[in-house]
Amino acid sequence: MSDSQQTVTSEQEMLNWGRLLMDGLVYADLLAARDRGPEENWFDFWMSRADHYEKLADESLATGHRMTAGYWLWVGSMAAQYAQFLWFDERRPIGQDRKVELYRRAAPLLDPPAERYDLPIDNTTIVSYLRLPKSANGRAVPCVVLLGGLESTKEESYLFENLLLERGLATITFDGPGQGEMLTDVALAGDFERYSSKVLDHLKTLPSIDAARIGVLGRSLGGHYALRAAATDPRFRACLSWGGFVQMDDWDFETPMTKQSWKYVTNSDTLEQAQVRVRDAIDIRPVLAGLTCPTYFQHGAKDELPMSEIDQLKQYAVNAPLVFDIEPEGDHCCHNLGPAPRLRMADWMADQLTS
Amino acid sequence: MSDSQQTVTSEQEMLNWGRLLMDGLVYADLLAARDRGPEENWFDFWMSRADHYEKLADESLATGHRMTAGYWLWVGSMAAQYAQFLWFDERRPIGQDRKVELYRRAAPLLDPPAERYDLPIDNTTIVSYLRLPKSANGRAVPCVVLLGGLESTKEESYLFENLLLERGLATITFDGPGQGEMLTDVALAGDFERYSSKVLDHLKTLPSIDAARIGVLGRSLGGHYALRAAATDPRFRACLSWGGFVQMDDWDFETPMTKQSWKYVTNSDTLEQAQVRVRDAIDIRPVLAGLTCPTYFQHGAKDELPMSEIDQLKQYAVNAPLVFDIEPEGDHCCHNLGPAPRLRMADWMADQLTS
Repeated sequence: MSDSQQTVTSEQEMLNWGRLLMDGLVYADLLAARDRGPEENWFDFWMSRADHYEKLADESLATGHRMTAGYWLWVGSMAAQYAQFLWFDERRPIGQDRKVELYRRAAPLLDPPAERYDLPIDNTTIVSYLRLPKSANGRAVPCVVLLGGLESTKEESYLFENLLLERGLATITFDGPGQGEMLTDVALAGDFERYSSKVLDHLKTLPSIDAARIGVLGRSLGGHYALRAAATDPRFRACLSWGGFVQMDDWDFETPMTKQSWKYVTNSDTLEQAQVRVRDAIDIRPVLAGLTCPTYFQHGAKDELPMSEIDQLKQYAVNAPLVFDIEPEGDHCCHNLGPAPRLRMADWMADQLTS
Repeated sequence: MSDSQQTVTSEQEMLNWGRLLMDGLVYADLLAARDRGPEENWFDFWMSRADHYEKLADESLATGHRMTAGYWLWVGSMAAQYAQFLWFDERRPIGQDRKVELYRRAAPLLDPPAERYDLPIDNTTIVSYLRLPKSANGRAVPCVVLLGGLESTKEESYLFENLLLERGLATITFDGPGQGEMLTDVALAGDFERYSSKVLDHLKTLPSIDAARIGVLGRSLGGHYALRAAATDPRFRACLSWGGFVQMDDWDFETPMTKQSWKYVTNSDTLEQAQVRVRDAIDIRPVLAGLTCPTYFQHGAKDELPMSEIDQLKQYAVNAPLVFDIEPEGDHCCHNLGPAPRLRMADWMADQLTS
């Protein structure tokens, strides 16, 4: 494959309109990204949008418009996210750091705000952000732990958090092994549940949270982690796997860019090494019998991930009440279907934690 | 022009991606509208989406998910709006009635809810919807009167209302002459201020509203009405004209479909008759000297409306502090520029009414 072919293929994969719009990026920016001239590459285009939005945020702060400033800083962090999310060279950490920086500035300005908690674990830190619903009014409320995936991190779940917050649930997001702020310290590994349980330990110390009503929800690889988290920690009351999967033994269906992502987050030297590491780390069949809480599994039939993951889940999660939400026309995570799948998931989770 | 050419032209004008997305329509529906087969016409496609969303709403209500139901009913009302908004035959009232019906069902389920007030005037009724910010907590709050335009009505301002509500302002919307629920009783006329002032009278009776802090904001033709409302009623504390204009004497720059809209809302037999009626009714030069409150005028330089409207405003509104927001790349109402112009307008209005 020539360089130019690679570029075209990459851009088609990166400019996933459904995903980017549902994650809150600005439509006018998507048009401009598509139509920009050959002199400007994808990364530079989006990083310059991030700069533009930070400038708008600073202007808004200077005139006392904190809410608008928070929005621009968050949109700027999303621009930086999607600048870097499928590059595997020095652009990756540069864009990642920029996303983290902009989201950190946005956090206290969001509505409701996101409060940062740094949780020590081993020789590193879990960076997490907690948001409380405005309707709480001092009462302890249920909480959902949101998990990012292969190249998504704690910053991208903002709009889904809003759906949960509107429904009276608190939210907490964090970066685990192989993700965002933790990647340089800890590569992808097979013990994600140590991190999700650590976050749950933290939640139990907060008077604002009803510790008996905590759910876990993850998207894509995060949907795999959510199953692992709930299967290994009975304190989770509900589990939602959004475009997730049980194991990654036969990764031939993955796109070339996704394979590169696996290589990057496992800190592997070769694709072959990455494949082995992923196969060993990403397999919850041995623990799925421990899953006992209500569990929702969402899958688009047009996902690259095979429908056989549904059978795997049924075969191994024999002790959990399972709900399957299979969309015949859905792509990976059903990003192409608009708000319907997300609203169903938010309502299901609220039902589990508030009824 | 052949029928098929007319259809293509019409559809290009109707499928205004920036406008429809910023008004909250579902991106997946826009794709499906664009890609649908020749056997399904525009009107039927969108009316069937409205039916689909009402079905989702009923399912949500049946399972106790009121917030989601409110969202679907509102999106359904938007689908009905854009089904009919540029047809000038029996489809117009059918789609209009459907929009009204779905929004009326949505109103109590919105967050915050919209409360309907029927205000008698002459031999008809002003149908209005009031929403109070959640942050009010029983305090009297400022309020913004939102005005629809040539083919937009009280139902389409929902997302803009949300921007104002988040900033602590109440909102009220209504249909005036030539608009929505009033059109069959009263065609477009030159006395819109009688209706906006009637709504203001109503607001002054409500303990939830700070009657000394009421602004008016309108989009497109509503931006013209906003100027008229504020110029003739000194109780308005701030005025925002979003893509508005001063007069409509030289309508040659209007598109054929917009001319058809004028004919429809003036209840005229011919385009020539419509042109005269519009020219006479839509001209605020005689009253603009009465405009004294802070006034914000937003215009996209790529609008069909000429830049000379800015000069007209400067020439006649000699007693008002004027703020101009001219976007060099903006189309009509700057729909193509994403959230930035809307956030600026919301912040400006909040500054006027809360400082």
